[in-house]
Formats: sequence, structure tokens, C-alpha cells
Amino acid sequence: MQYNISDNMSDVKGSIIRELFKLAKDPNMIAFGGGNPSPETFPVEEIAEITAKVLKEDPVSVLQYGLSEGYTPLRETMKKHLEKVEGISFENNELLIVSGGQQAADLATKVLVNRGDVILTEDPAFIGCLNTFRSYGAKLVGVPVESDGINVEKLEEALKENENVRFLYTIPSFQNPTGITMSAEKRKKVYELCQKYDVLIFEDNPYGELRFSGESVKPIKALDTDGRVIYSGSFSKVMAPAFRLGFVVFDKELTGRMTVAKQCTDVHSTVLFQHICNEYLTNYDYGGHIAKTREVYRRKCDLMLNEMEKKMHPKVSFNRPEGGLFVMAFLPEGVDSFPFVQEGIKRGVYCVPGVAFSADPSVPSNGFRMNYSTPSDEQIIKGVDILGKLSYEWLEK
Amino acid sequence: MQYNISDNMSDVKGSIIRELFKLAKDPNMIAFGGGNPSPETFPVEEIAEITAKVLKEDPVSVLQYGLSEGYTPLRETMKKHLEKVEGISFENNELLIVSGGQQAADLATKVLVNRGDVILTEDPAFIGCLNTFRSYGAKLVGVPVESDGINVEKLEEALKENENVRFLYTIPSFQNPTGITMSAEKRKKVYELCQKYDVLIFEDNPYGELRFSGESVKPIKALDTDGRVIYSGSFSKVMAPAFRLGFVVFDKELTGRMTVAKQCTDVHSTVLFQHICNEYLTNYDYGGHIAKTREVYRRKCDLMLNEMEKKMHPKVSFNRPEGGLFVMAFLPEGVDSFPFVQEGIKRGVYCVPGVAFSADPSVPSNGFRMNYSTPSDEQIIKGVDILGKLSYEWLEK
Repeated sequence: MQYNISDNMSDVKGSIIRELFKLAKDPNMIAFGGGNPSPETFPVEEIAEITAKVLKEDPVSVLQYGLSEGYTPLRETMKKHLEKVEGISFENNELLIVSGGQQAADLATKVLVNRGDVILTEDPAFIGCLNTFRSYGAKLVGVPVESDGINVEKLEEALKENENVRFLYTIPSFQNPTGITMSAEKRKKVYELCQKYDVLIFEDNPYGELRFSGESVKPIKALDTDGRVIYSGSFSKVMAPAFRLGFVVFDKELTGRMTVAKQCTDVHSTVLFQHICNEYLTNYDYGGHIAKTREVYRRKCDLMLNEMEKKMHPKVSFNRPEGGLFVMAFLPEGVDSFPFVQEGIKRGVYCVPGVAFSADPSVPSNGFRMNYSTPSDEQIIKGVDILGKLSYEWLEK
Repeated sequence: MQYNISDNMSDVKGSIIRELFKLAKDPNMIAFGGGNPSPETFPVEEIAEITAKVLKEDPVSVLQYGLSEGYTPLRETMKKHLEKVEGISFENNELLIVSGGQQAADLATKVLVNRGDVILTEDPAFIGCLNTFRSYGAKLVGVPVESDGINVEKLEEALKENENVRFLYTIPSFQNPTGITMSAEKRKKVYELCQKYDVLIFEDNPYGELRFSGESVKPIKALDTDGRVIYSGSFSKVMAPAFRLGFVVFDKELTGRMTVAKQCTDVHSTVLFQHICNEYLTNYDYGGHIAKTREVYRRKCDLMLNEMEKKMHPKVSFNRPEGGLFVMAFLPEGVDSFPFVQEGIKRGVYCVPGVAFSADPSVPSNGFRMNYSTPSDEQIIKGVDILGKLSYEWLEK
């Protein structure tokens, strides 16, 4: 058979991270390349307890087909939670439960983007969503990220120069892959620019609750008076990734379209896990759980940064994340990180080369993303030691 | 805000079934309109047992991110199962786990269909998949279904007359909505026609294991020597719908594309439920469970058909399904079923009007779909009684 692959999918390459993920099954490989939350943060006992209770008392409610919009009590709980924690108003907004943050991007793109339309994106940005955008034939235009978030001058240039811009894709808090947080001032400026050029914003906030240092900053969605911001979040990093649960918030006018898009893809998300999330947020110590999770990540991040400071060649630079799962390190300008990462894999530690996160992957990157949430303390120390030695060899050869 | 909805999604209406589904929350409403499996068939105790065990012994394995392709042991189990039960060879085929049968259609369409391409479909056909095809901008061309399956002369005409036909969509066993099963001869003929015109087949088999009378017929995929058939199945009707688990089988050449499509939509399907399915198929009495489920459906189907024979106006015709969840009834030719169904809802029983399943919903339908798996025996008796009385009023007025 000769298969005719659709135009949209012909250009999408697999996620290098998902491929590298398979390396992590090798118990001798130190995994800095994934984005897995730390398993020690999973509320295992509570999940088991809630599951046993509901499967005993009302099994049909969590095994039968559910509503496409999501489990109503969880939707209400999340609305209250986002109102309180993130300052998002639900006067004109609606919330749907989706199958992980990834699906929020998938549905929004399905509803809003035609083949050939432009999506502006922070550059580098999360490869999973970039590939989702590519899978609809979107043209990606990257806007560089600085230490306090997206470069707003370059953003305005991109807004000016491109036609048919459907939205700006941003992770303002603890960005993937850079770990950078966009300042409150920049968030306001970004919103105003998107108002000026009448462009939507897709604000992805999977790590928002994982702040372990610095001052809390409200999401762009909290500034949204126009219905301009589609906001997504995830239970993957605060409950468990295998739940495949997230949520997406948008102006009520889009509810019908987003619901139909959800129907067309997977009908609804798993009900048992929605039930667990709702129970956990409502009747358990969710605040305490988040505090504990943050502490785990603060400690792991500190450990990795301290080891990097000690072991990396001084010409390797990196930022200090205030939350989330990732730190991005940079070889000197002009030094391609790809062969460096490959050599690291040969020596037993894997990171993700920056090029994986580029809007235009044909341009080499000097960065590489390191994850501190998955590896053990011993692996962090050993892995950074390997990469540190490699950096000296690499940069002095 | 003025939202610019994508061209593909502008034309997709919500599933009327999903809207009607909300009616079913009214405890006084008799629900013949859903496609819910009977909750008495859910293996609740076993699900609870396996869940408790794995959450105690190895929680991280079912809570952490999983592979996009699916849980490897379940994939292997399903390959063996399909080889044995359905005669599908895995010499040249691959199997991925997806988030319900619906997602199999979504991914296949994403990978294979450009906006404007033609998909041939049985007419009437499952609205969920028709909407998925529409959400990619596919042009649907319906081919009528007869009592032994699709009309092959009309199929050949459609194959001849249309360009850019990407695949034929068919549910050969216990079709949704008609309940009809395609004969073995027609399956062969359909395959040969698709060979002749070099068109793929998307064979949807969510109810395949639910045969309760008649002779077993192998799927079209079992005839496939070219890699021409994409075959999907579901755990929704044999385990639990809220698992949101299904599988899709296709020629190995498509593995990379299908996997990337999966990554772009929801990364992977829930791991706990994959684990449960694998445990259940491997170490529990799956055969006995299926036998029990078939018996439940045989009994319920018989009850509904017997009541229909007694109560419906003689000009209301219907088929006798050999399996699955649905029977389709027909008012006399030229009588639109839509107002009939609406009047039924007013009287406390809802079915789905045939127009919901039409490739071209602008043409009225005289059929309506009735589901016997969800309602209780009492509801079946009472609901058919209401519709029966209504049919007399309707056809004698």
C-alpha cells in the first residue's frame, strides 16, 4: 500500500522527548530528559482510599459514560479554586475538563486554526504543544524568551509582520523548557499588545501551583476583560500524570465549539479520576499536599543548581527557576548542544537538546533542558558530575 | 471578541445524542437514546480488586506518565486476543492503545485526511465518527445499508463517482445505529471493491464481542492482505466506558504517524485502566464475563423486540440484531421521525431520530434508534408501550 499522509501530519516529527523517554526505561540511564513529576509527590494512599470508597458505594457513577464537558462537581470545584488562587473570574468564562493539558491545546487549535494560519510562540517552547499546532498545519513564528519572559519588542514585530495570527502561545510561569517566569509587567504588556493587534492568547499553566521561591504572579487570564485568553491547566503535576486530566478556561461564547471538539476526539475524560480530583480538592488537605510538593521541588532544584554551579564549566550558563520542573542550561553561543547531549547519553545521562523546543528546528540551539523532578538525589549528583566533566572536555578541546 | 472559528469546525454540530444524554439525568425519563452499556455487566469487584492491588504494590507504574503507544503488556495481550478471536494477523500489523474507539477514528482521520477529501460511509452511521470526519473538513458520501450490510452496488457507484476518497467507514457487526450485521460475502465483496478502487477501509468494531445469536463472522481486517484496513475496537462495551480505552490496528508502516498523532492529542491513555484491562484479560475469567454480558444483552434485546412486536403499529418496521446495543425502527417511508421522537420525549421516553446518523442531515429520516442495554426491563416495557401508543396515534391521525 502507498499511504497518502495528510498534509498537516506530513510535516510533524515525533517528539524527541517521547522517544528519549524510552531511554529512561534503562535503569542505568540517568534521566534529566523527561518531564515526569516526582513520584514521591503522588498522593497514593488518598487515591487508593477514594477509589476503593467510590467503587464500593457508587461504582456505576465512575464507570459509565460521562458528560463531554466533564464531571460537574469537579468543574465547579475548579472554578472556585481558580477564582481564589489565580484571580480568574467566571462571570463570562467557562471551564471544561480535558484529557491533560495537551488536549486543551489540541481542542483550541482544532476550533480556531486553519491550515496556513500563524501561531506565535515563545521560542523555545514546549514541544508537545508545538507539535499539536503543527498537526493542524499552523505556521509557527517564534519570539525569543528573556530572563523575565518573552521579548515584547520582538513580539510586537511579529504581531505587525504576520497576517492571520490566531493566537500567541505562552507558558508564563516556570516555562517549559527554560524555567523562566514572565514578570507581572510583561504579562500586562503582552495582554495589551494582543489587544492592540486583536490576537488571542493561549496561556498554558501546567506548573502554576509549583512555585517554590519568589513572589506569586497572577496569570494573564486574570487580566482578561475581552475573552481574549484561553487558559489551560493540568492535574498531571499536582495529582498524577496518568490521570490524563487537565482543564481549559475560555469565554462562554466558545463553550459550544469546545464541547463539540471534545466530543469529536475522545467523547469525555475518565470519570473515576475526575471524581478523585474533586474529592481530593474538596475533602482532603490539598493545600498541604501542594506545600509538600513544592518543598520536594525546591529541594531538588536547589540540589541540581548547586551541583551545576560546582561542576559545570564556567562558560555553561543557566537560570534559576522559581518553580516548575525544569532548568535550561546553555553552552556558549554558537555551540550546538545536540552532539553534546548525544555524548551525554553515551555516558549514561540524558537531557533534551534545545532544538527540540524550537519553532524552527532547522536552526541549531546551544541550550539543553534538564529536569530535576524525576531523578533521585544521587542521580542528580552523579548526572551533573558526568555532564560537568563533559562540559570541560567539550569546551576546552 | 469576534472569534474566527476554523473552517473545519464551523460546520460541525454537536452530537444530538450527547445533548439527549443530558435528558437521561432526569430519573423520570426512559432512556432509549443512549449507547450506554448495561451497568450490570461492569466487572466492578474485579476492577476494585485489581486497582487496590496495583495501588498497593506498584502505584507509580500506574500513576506516572506512560508510553504513547500504550501499556506494552496490554498491547501484547490484545494482539494475541485479536489473532485468536478475530483472525487478525500481526505479522504486518501494529496495535496502539487509544482513548476509546472514538480516538481511533480521530487519529486515523488526522493522519490520512485533508480538508475536502471524501470519506464514504454507511448511511446511516455512528454520529460520533461522522462528526470526527467532519471536524477534519471531510466530505461525507453516504452509501445505504441493507439488511445484510452496505449496498455494494451503491458502494461501487460511490467509489467510481468520487475522487480523493480516503476511506470507507463501516461498522460491519451490529452496526450503530441499525443493529445490522454485514454478511461474510459482502465483507469479501467490500474488500475487493476497495482493492479495485485502491481505497482504505476504516473498520469500527466496538460491539464485535457482543454477539448473542447467529453465526460469528470474521472482520474485514481478517481478509486484509494489503494493509488496506484500519481496524478499531473498544473496551467501553466489554469493560467500562469511563475507562476511555480502545485500540487501533493498522499496517506497521503507519505506526510512526499514528503514534505522533496520539502524542499531539493526549500524549497517552490512562495507565491504570490499561493495567486493569490487561490483568482482567490475562488472569480473570474474561470469557465467562463476555458470555454473561452477551446473555444480558440477548435477554434485553429479546424483551424489547417482543414488546415492539406487540405494541408498535404494524407499519413500524424493525430489524432483529444478532448482537450489540441497538435496534433501529422505521416509520413508513416518507414519515419524518424527528417530530415523532420529540413527541416521545414529551411523553417521557427518548430515542434518537435517524437524521442524527445521516451523512447528509438535511434529508429527513423515517428511522429512530432504540437502545436496549441501558434501560431496565420495566423501562423497556413501559417505554415501548408509550411509543407503541404514540405510533398508533401518529400513523392513524
